[in-house]
Amino acid sequence: MIPASRLSLNTATVRERWDLRACVDGCVRHGIGGIGPWRDKLAEAGVDEAARMISGAGLRVSGLCRGGWYTAAGALTDAVLDDNRRAVDEARAIDAACLVMVVGGLAPGSRDIDGAREMVAEGLSKTLEHARQAGVPVAIEPLHPMYAADRSCISTTAQALDLCDALGEGIGVALDVYHVWWDPALAAQIERAGRERLLAFHICDWLVPTRDLLTDRGMMGDGVIDIAGIRALVEAAGYDDLVEVEIFSSQDWWTRDPDEVLATMVRRGIEAS
Amino acid sequence: MIPASRLSLNTATVRERWDLRACVDGCVRHGIGGIGPWRDKLAEAGVDEAARMISGAGLRVSGLCRGGWYTAAGALTDAVLDDNRRAVDEARAIDAACLVMVVGGLAPGSRDIDGAREMVAEGLSKTLEHARQAGVPVAIEPLHPMYAADRSCISTTAQALDLCDALGEGIGVALDVYHVWWDPALAAQIERAGRERLLAFHICDWLVPTRDLLTDRGMMGDGVIDIAGIRALVEAAGYDDLVEVEIFSSQDWWTRDPDEVLATMVRRGIEAS
Repeated sequence: MIPASRLSLNTATVRERWDLRACVDGCVRHGIGGIGPWRDKLAEAGVDEAARMISGAGLRVSGLCRGGWYTAAGALTDAVLDDNRRAVDEARAIDAACLVMVVGGLAPGSRDIDGAREMVAEGLSKTLEHARQAGVPVAIEPLHPMYAADRSCISTTAQALDLCDALGEGIGVALDVYHVWWDPALAAQIERAGRERLLAFHICDWLVPTRDLLTDRGMMGDGVIDIAGIRALVEAAGYDDLVEVEIFSSQDWWTRDPDEVLATMVRRGIEAS
Repeated sequence: MIPASRLSLNTATVRERWDLRACVDGCVRHGIGGIGPWRDKLAEAGVDEAARMISGAGLRVSGLCRGGWYTAAGALTDAVLDDNRRAVDEARAIDAACLVMVVGGLAPGSRDIDGAREMVAEGLSKTLEHARQAGVPVAIEPLHPMYAADRSCISTTAQALDLCDALGEGIGVALDVYHVWWDPALAAQIERAGRERLLAFHICDWLVPTRDLLTDRGMMGDGVIDIAGIRALVEAAGYDDLVEVEIFSSQDWWTRDPDEVLATMVRRGIEAS
């Protein structure tokens, strides 16, 4: 079980209905201890105002979603790198535990996944220089292999940790059970990561059947992931920080009253995580 | 490029419109050298008649689809094991290069993926005893991780090869680019497999976007997989046998005239593989 005070609301979970103010107030109302905002919600509110709002409510920030997308322009353009610098600055402004990186898939029109991975490694290296100065930990989020083409050419925890080892300090991984639950190497890689590299832990569930590759994630307990088992591995490795709930669900949770979503998230945090 | 004589038609590619007879005749008409039948098509035709039909047409059999599903009943029941024995016998009857195994996902109602993997290992071990006597190579097909819950708890080439190493001789892998293209360990694992463990090679393409988890595979060249690159790795490891084309495509290729599908497959085998 995860008590509400250890849960963090990723704003994507209620993104269709609540702005940042409503998310912050909702967390307070439901006793949720943290928030994981997306940058669009920060931009709407204004970053400084967002920072005041969050700290004023006594919420911790489990991470800022998201930097990355290094391959989007087919090369490491200034625009891509500048955007990542801004993401670092925003993460610092809201005192986020990390900046979550969705690194990007294949470059447009390309089939060269090795090339994409090289571009990502170089991009992360550049962002990391700035992030270290800013004191913002950078968290690579390995995404499920079904997103390798269009979202993240980093698909496994081992691959992300190899990259961390190559890049040095100040970088680690954001583990989302949705992306990694299937991985036969998961337990070993969580142990390898240890506290230093485990920067964020996200939960939701894998539904059977899954009707859409992107927006059919389940609430904890409604799917097949052994969330408590993976949490135990993460905690055995030393992670005792916030557990973020990030659910993309166009046909179900996004259509519901957000207060019902948060109440369910709190109950399932206790009963099914 | 892959000449038509090296291509094999997986019957699922035209399953909505052609029975085995039509598939065999179609292969002959288009100069395709092999066939990879599914068991439902064999059953329709009768196994002995199917064997005569295929050998009479001078086609080689790249593999029989499929055995496995060890977790389907939640335990290794006699029914599951008997069905796999029959699959071995059918593969032998049609002189298939291998019996392709889709091993099964989580047991019904279970979240225990380690338990599923143990059940699969034990089931494969039992099937393998019979397969060795029958002289039928058993090919584990690692399926894309998006099928880990409901189709195959073996998701990577490394995992399949670890199991092969544990089980000994007479077992290897069926590599389908659709399932493995994203894997950062792919090149190393193909080299590790070598000729002895590489029992089948399947191609199609990964479409962006992919609209359905199961039935939205693309024709070679229409997606983002570097098919020629992966083929080069497989050939460098010593595999020089048939290349099977298996396309599940409910909204596109399954709706077309199968002769158009085969003509396209032959052209794309040359131009985009």
